[in-house]
Amino acid sequence: MDITALFNLSYGLYVIGVKDGDRKVGCVVNTVSQATSKPVTLTVCINKDNYTNECIKRTKEFAVSILSERTKESLFGIFGFSSGRDKDKFSEVPYGLTPSGQPYVKEGVTGYIQCKVIDFVDNYTHTIFIAEVQEAENLLKEPPMTYAYYHKVVKGKTAKNAPTYVAETEKAGQPTCSYICSICNYEYPGSKEEFGRLPEEYKCPICQAAKNKFREC
Amino acid sequence: MDITALFNLSYGLYVIGVKDGDRKVGCVVNTVSQATSKPVTLTVCINKDNYTNECIKRTKEFAVSILSERTKESLFGIFGFSSGRDKDKFSEVPYGLTPSGQPYVKEGVTGYIQCKVIDFVDNYTHTIFIAEVQEAENLLKEPPMTYAYYHKVVKGKTAKNAPTYVAETEKAGQPTCSYICSICNYEYPGSKEEFGRLPEEYKCPICQAAKNKFREC
Repeated sequence: MDITALFNLSYGLYVIGVKDGDRKVGCVVNTVSQATSKPVTLTVCINKDNYTNECIKRTKEFAVSILSERTKESLFGIFGFSSGRDKDKFSEVPYGLTPSGQPYVKEGVTGYIQCKVIDFVDNYTHTIFIAEVQEAENLLKEPPMTYAYYHKVVKGKTAKNAPTYVAETEKAGQPTCSYICSICNYEYPGSKEEFGRLPEEYKCPICQAAKNKFREC
Repeated sequence: MDITALFNLSYGLYVIGVKDGDRKVGCVVNTVSQATSKPVTLTVCINKDNYTNECIKRTKEFAVSILSERTKESLFGIFGFSSGRDKDKFSEVPYGLTPSGQPYVKEGVTGYIQCKVIDFVDNYTHTIFIAEVQEAENLLKEPPMTYAYYHKVVKGKTAKNAPTYVAETEKAGQPTCSYICSICNYEYPGSKEEFGRLPEEYKCPICQAAKNKFREC
């Protein structure tokens, strides 16, 4: 089986936000897909290790923020490479609340969708949530960010909890980069010399890790 | 609720193929999404009115052909706007068979994925199939066709059975086209005069309908 054939499946990128009592939690996913048009339902697949997963099972509601090509790179570090158990992710970005109080990212997203869970299915490491769309609003007229754009243009990496995650060692070929972030696998695009000349305050543009978290490829 | 916010969800385009006894049936979908990486599973959402749906429920297997930007426009007419109950769609395209005998489109696709159904969920008009990936092969190194590319570049339309279908009348604004295909809603890109000068043998590039199936917008 050539697993790389699945790399040609196309996805968008989204932040799933959910109210957890007084807190707001969320994570980045690539698995939002409209399922029916009458009524309007969608599916989203979330890793069971993600704190967002257990919060959705409790609240039965969530908001989808649709990321655009204008989404800041730092958002992937905040929502993609850290856990809502440890920090209040929404406190680090401008956010809004849907009519029912679910949090959504307010800047750099094409819009939000408020959803009510009607069913969920256990599927190995992930849960597939089926939800009815209750509200939806457009916010910004920009192209939505696709997974392909994220990898090619933003040079972003895949979080370990994503269904599409493939360990670097499983990929064909050797890395061709100079330095790589040990937290999120972001590959520094310049040479070793250029990396060496970066100031000590340099941070990974994806996950905000410190310069000393990078290792040679 | 502004349903147009959901137009910014991103998708690829795929042909789902399944063996139906001695025949081969299939349809175009935009709802393939990887669900887990260990084991590799995916979900696909198919309208219950599609003949492919009942065939998958019988055989518990199917193949996904991943369409690319090189996929011929006519494929959408063959697989997207007609029923496998009425014609043998795979007889009209070059096809191959996966190791277990499921049919896939052989030209203009980035590759195929052979799947075994492990569960399915009833969701209003559609069924969500959850399937384990058994085989996968790359065929063509071209960008996969996204739903956005299909609409913008191919000028393709949405089949009524798609989860993303929104009747033209529900969309904001008035049509600005000259002539429209009454079968698949393809909008002829030229003026009324240019349409009038087309030969009588002209066929809709999407669904192959005859020229007299077009109506004025």
